[in-house]
Amino acid sequence: MDKKKFRIAIDAMGGDFAPINEVQGVISVFETKPPDLDIEIILIGNENKIKASIEQFDKGLLKNSNYSIIHTEEVITMDDDPTVALKKKKNSSLYKGIELHCQGYADAFVSAGNTGAVLSTATILNGRINGVSRPTIGSFFPTKNKYPSLVLDVGANIDTKARYLYEFAVMGSIYTTQMLGLEHPKVGLLNIGEEESKGNDTLLEAYSLLKSSNLNFIGNVEGRDILLGKADVIVCDGFTGNVILKFAESVLDLFKTKLKSFASKNILNTIMLGLLKPAFKKVFAEFDYQKYGGVPILGINGVVIIGHGKSSPMAIQNMIYKSIEQIKKDINKKIEYALTKSILSTNN
Amino acid sequence: MDKKKFRIAIDAMGGDFAPINEVQGVISVFETKPPDLDIEIILIGNENKIKASIEQFDKGLLKNSNYSIIHTEEVITMDDDPTVALKKKKNSSLYKGIELHCQGYADAFVSAGNTGAVLSTATILNGRINGVSRPTIGSFFPTKNKYPSLVLDVGANIDTKARYLYEFAVMGSIYTTQMLGLEHPKVGLLNIGEEESKGNDTLLEAYSLLKSSNLNFIGNVEGRDILLGKADVIVCDGFTGNVILKFAESVLDLFKTKLKSFASKNILNTIMLGLLKPAFKKVFAEFDYQKYGGVPILGINGVVIIGHGKSSPMAIQNMIYKSIEQIKKDINKKIEYALTKSILSTNN
Repeated sequence: MDKKKFRIAIDAMGGDFAPINEVQGVISVFETKPPDLDIEIILIGNENKIKASIEQFDKGLLKNSNYSIIHTEEVITMDDDPTVALKKKKNSSLYKGIELHCQGYADAFVSAGNTGAVLSTATILNGRINGVSRPTIGSFFPTKNKYPSLVLDVGANIDTKARYLYEFAVMGSIYTTQMLGLEHPKVGLLNIGEEESKGNDTLLEAYSLLKSSNLNFIGNVEGRDILLGKADVIVCDGFTGNVILKFAESVLDLFKTKLKSFASKNILNTIMLGLLKPAFKKVFAEFDYQKYGGVPILGINGVVIIGHGKSSPMAIQNMIYKSIEQIKKDINKKIEYALTKSILSTNN
Repeated sequence: MDKKKFRIAIDAMGGDFAPINEVQGVISVFETKPPDLDIEIILIGNENKIKASIEQFDKGLLKNSNYSIIHTEEVITMDDDPTVALKKKKNSSLYKGIELHCQGYADAFVSAGNTGAVLSTATILNGRINGVSRPTIGSFFPTKNKYPSLVLDVGANIDTKARYLYEFAVMGSIYTTQMLGLEHPKVGLLNIGEEESKGNDTLLEAYSLLKSSNLNFIGNVEGRDILLGKADVIVCDGFTGNVILKFAESVLDLFKTKLKSFASKNILNTIMLGLLKPAFKKVFAEFDYQKYGGVPILGINGVVIIGHGKSSPMAIQNMIYKSIEQIKKDINKKIEYALTKSILSTNN
């Protein structure tokens, strides 16, 4: 069905376990992809290390698959400054990958590396979509409902203007409509109370922008409403979003520690918790960011998916499939249309 | 030992289950208090309802205990505007209680009612401690360590200046030293990265104020560090703090929902989870705000403890004991000394 070939560039040196998890993720893409889906993978990074990982994990599948390796010398670490790729390390896998994507040699770029560096490099090289003030990164949170909720921004923009929040809402709505199949995603504005009068001037202005838009705006939502699933898309400044995201990621850790300490108290506890391990795995799985396998940078002229540094091979695989889906759905076009049209209509 | 009598005024109409939980909390104070602790309780609210609750729950203990009822007609609801007590409902239990405290008829005021209304009423009637710019409310979060961490502000001040954050740190340090017995509580500044250069101008300025103070400042902490227990006192603006607090309160709910849905899938799951119920109760207990039983408004000239609307009788009891401890430790004097001294030394 899909006649188009999808050429995906991968930052093979990105994640904490690179290039092992990246290579395994690529292998599992070729193992699982439908026969009529034409994928080409471009692995970017230290050629020797990539080849060693392929040797270790590939069972002969890659030999007949459409992939290539582009060697780069420099590596961007998680501690590097976000601007390092632009200023110094242009021969890094991260920079090269985005460059290839911008030059049209790849349809998307996928990285589990330094989020800040991917964001700033892609923002500069890819540029912004027409009508977008600030590109943004969102994150999915589990909810009581069937679908997770998308919170954005989670760190790309510390200080946000009302207009940015409105644009995040537009981009988040389009993304969840296209990628999760939601019909009229409910949009909430993160605040410290439900009343329209809550929050500072920026939030008041954002409320009125959202209210007068054609989005399915349900009003202010509070911290507790994220996991309740009250809204499908929740917009906030990147400071608050980042703090909640990191807080949420640590909740599982604390539960596990407390359960372990409970289990170690006596043999009965140990046995009971041992019996329940499979249950926990299932329940905890939903709280696991890896399940969602990366999030896009929304608002740039390109398809760039970023994953957690600890992304598993499964997460890498998901990120690749997500990038393909995003290309197919032509999400950027839809964002451009919505925001340039709304610029005319709202004059903001 | 304690010759002093502690006169505690209670907002009997405050919580979601008022006056039932309030009355039960008072009864259990008289049941559990050491014989040499001289307590007088002033229950403020609808006399008939209070008496009915006493009749229902008291087994003859109150008759010989030192308590009184002050009748008030008006009730402040959770949905009322924070300024309602000051502007309109001066014959409410909330207003009367704070007024009694300010006039010297009670040594402390305890309420599980409308937090915003208690805060604004107490700030106006009690006034601020010398040296304090803005009173603040903190909240305890469970950690991997023995002690919880105190996050403040959690909603009293949406927009904060660097100086406020510094004052929150001073007040939080004194409170945890006195109430938890910590020797040199570690203070962290909530931020989106550990590097000193992270955050907006306010955070940069707060960082430098904290660094040059005599507090045990450990630098920036991130969202994940709250539950890790990296710092004993974590300061942030009230918007972020409020969102995290409400988010944290909803985590348990989501876990419970997911576990229930898992249990309902088949009989084996049901049995396993049934067996583990006592375990969960213990593990979850630490995540339960009620355990900590209320938090003080720090920075006002008085002792006012506020609790969650859903405060149990046990939480009410804890709040009363906490108010007494706070009086005994003379925390406000220590705050005044620290902040007036530091005004001279830092010139901020």
